[in-house]
Amino acid sequence: MSIVSDATPRKLELTDEEIFDAHIDGKLSVELTSPLENQRDLSIAYTPGVAQVSRAIAADETLAARYTWTNRLVVVVSDGTAVLGLGDIGPRASLPVMEGKSALFKKFAGLNSIPLVLDTKDPDEIVETLVRLRPSFGAVNLEDISAPRCFEIEQRVIEALDCPVMHDDQHGTAIVVLAALKGAVKVQNRDIAGLRIVISGAGAAGVACTNILLAAGATDVVVLDSKGIVSRERTDLGPIKSDLAERTNPAGRHGGLIEALDGADVFIGVSAGTVPEEIVATMADDAIVFALSNPDPEIHPDVASKHVAIVATGRSDFPNQINNVLAFPGVFKGALDAGARRITEGMKLAAAEAILSVVGDELAVDKIVPSPLDPRVAPAVAEAVAAAAKAEGVTG
Amino acid sequence: MSIVSDATPRKLELTDEEIFDAHIDGKLSVELTSPLENQRDLSIAYTPGVAQVSRAIAADETLAARYTWTNRLVVVVSDGTAVLGLGDIGPRASLPVMEGKSALFKKFAGLNSIPLVLDTKDPDEIVETLVRLRPSFGAVNLEDISAPRCFEIEQRVIEALDCPVMHDDQHGTAIVVLAALKGAVKVQNRDIAGLRIVISGAGAAGVACTNILLAAGATDVVVLDSKGIVSRERTDLGPIKSDLAERTNPAGRHGGLIEALDGADVFIGVSAGTVPEEIVATMADDAIVFALSNPDPEIHPDVASKHVAIVATGRSDFPNQINNVLAFPGVFKGALDAGARRITEGMKLAAAEAILSVVGDELAVDKIVPSPLDPRVAPAVAEAVAAAAKAEGVTG
Repeated sequence: MSIVSDATPRKLELTDEEIFDAHIDGKLSVELTSPLENQRDLSIAYTPGVAQVSRAIAADETLAARYTWTNRLVVVVSDGTAVLGLGDIGPRASLPVMEGKSALFKKFAGLNSIPLVLDTKDPDEIVETLVRLRPSFGAVNLEDISAPRCFEIEQRVIEALDCPVMHDDQHGTAIVVLAALKGAVKVQNRDIAGLRIVISGAGAAGVACTNILLAAGATDVVVLDSKGIVSRERTDLGPIKSDLAERTNPAGRHGGLIEALDGADVFIGVSAGTVPEEIVATMADDAIVFALSNPDPEIHPDVASKHVAIVATGRSDFPNQINNVLAFPGVFKGALDAGARRITEGMKLAAAEAILSVVGDELAVDKIVPSPLDPRVAPAVAEAVAAAAKAEGVTG
Repeated sequence: MSIVSDATPRKLELTDEEIFDAHIDGKLSVELTSPLENQRDLSIAYTPGVAQVSRAIAADETLAARYTWTNRLVVVVSDGTAVLGLGDIGPRASLPVMEGKSALFKKFAGLNSIPLVLDTKDPDEIVETLVRLRPSFGAVNLEDISAPRCFEIEQRVIEALDCPVMHDDQHGTAIVVLAALKGAVKVQNRDIAGLRIVISGAGAAGVACTNILLAAGATDVVVLDSKGIVSRERTDLGPIKSDLAERTNPAGRHGGLIEALDGADVFIGVSAGTVPEEIVATMADDAIVFALSNPDPEIHPDVASKHVAIVATGRSDFPNQINNVLAFPGVFKGALDAGARRITEGMKLAAAEAILSVVGDELAVDKIVPSPLDPRVAPAVAEAVAAAAKAEGVTG
């Protein structure tokens, strides 16, 4: 599930008619980068001129990166199994989301992007299909693939391909959550290491948020799934959650949301669900709530604000909108600019720092992240990610 | 091998530098069809608005045709095994050709098109990959796939998918050759049925030209491969050529080019090779020569003209340029406009008629086909192809 912009329909007064009208024939178009007006143009872009370029690439395959569009083409790949909050609606129904994603890549990072949706849910087949298509693209944004399949699929695609690969529902969300949490603790003059953090949701976003927060120095993270706190004592956990249990919940808490939030400093909601006001009221002083469920946050920000110091949501009609678009365009642009063969944890951490850096002096309890439409974000993220890629030696 | 525009570099004075410069970062760009400038735009094209569209498609998958770009998206698919006259140079080296093809689809038919090149030559894997990607596109232009694999692959892709599929090296070439031959015999007030036709080349183009000419009423077609005339007496033929032998060469000719061309009315060259002047001189009175080999025609048009009545080549610097771009944009546009589930023989014949119709009153020995840049061609072809699709009941 993407954590994305969630303007309230009633506030923006979007009608079904204007939404559907805007989608007629889709949201993308392929255009020519140079004219094809006369015989000379045709002879350069097609035969006989094109044969020179094909011959050159045949002699040195690395020239495809320079003389074709593929090197900077991001394919947005989905099997339609976990689309927004709609669940497994299939590849065709996922297309409007994937086209929107491709549009955002162009808008914010200037990257060409196309959706490729797959009529298979089989991890072997998904990986195999991308391996066969490898010469056609430069990077893979995996999108809206259900957990826990998404973890295996991402890992296997990364291992099979020599290019940037990222499942945005995991890492895009995690990067922006980390940026926002860094912003929040900076406002409060605190440190992530000292916080008791509760993450509600052990799916794609929950697992990735846990990992990036631990990598960023968090020491006390408790994760909740639909059955309650993920702990070493539970016997119903699959391999992903068992691994989470090993690395989280150092105090050995058990129980559910009530037990987890009692005295906690941070709540991060990344699964559909609700958090009653009386439970939020039990959090520690100066608590931080990221209620990221879409379209309905786990708790209304106006209600949460009565009990905690800082509130963020996925909604555009409240302050502190946590939206993946702050991360993915710049992450892929930076990775491709640097010629990175993969996207590392260091590059993700650098992206989070860069997002925060754009807020600058405007940092405040109601401005812990930049606006999703801030045009400064993607270039800043790209620069930081490219620098991290070079520093880590994953380029070239 | 594509039969395409072949301007002589020396005549157009194309430099390597300008050719390579025009290919930097490729020839295609993905653009947005509507703006993403503000929160309202974002809420329509992405969340929350997009969820309405995804939900509607989930309830009725046919709505994907209306609300996504895929229904009119042509994928140009190649494994890079028979690229131009360069042979098996691989998928990466084929990309500049495929990008050029996608650009021509946009320029002449207004269709969105993307190249998908495959890092496999296995027919099973090629078919399987396209089946998995089926929800991502609306039509398949197979390109530069080597014979005889191309025949099996095309047939299997057609059977596996419920959308227009065409191997352009076969049928695009065949359609334009038929249009040109119809133009030539019209100028001469003759009929295709009465002609002795020789086709040099039993690959993709040669087989398809044979088939379309037989469908158009030709009665005496002789096909040559590298070993000579394809005849029932030969014991070295695979299944494709054995089938050709059954349907051609009614006079039971054997031998090579000399025997085939002696007294022939039409020569169609669709394989690299040369035809000596003295052999062309043995053709019948008022003979017709289509010397389509690129970049060097089987015989120079100025030389052929000394002995025959009508000459066509693939070259833009001589009259009667036979170029696939006269066919494929309109064929796919017509098929998609009509909602055709496949491209039939009738639609191909209609395309050839439409190409000829554009020449109209200008028909002459040096104008048997329109210019490849004539903007009237694709709309005329599309209209005729759509009408044929509807007449044949392959729509909807």
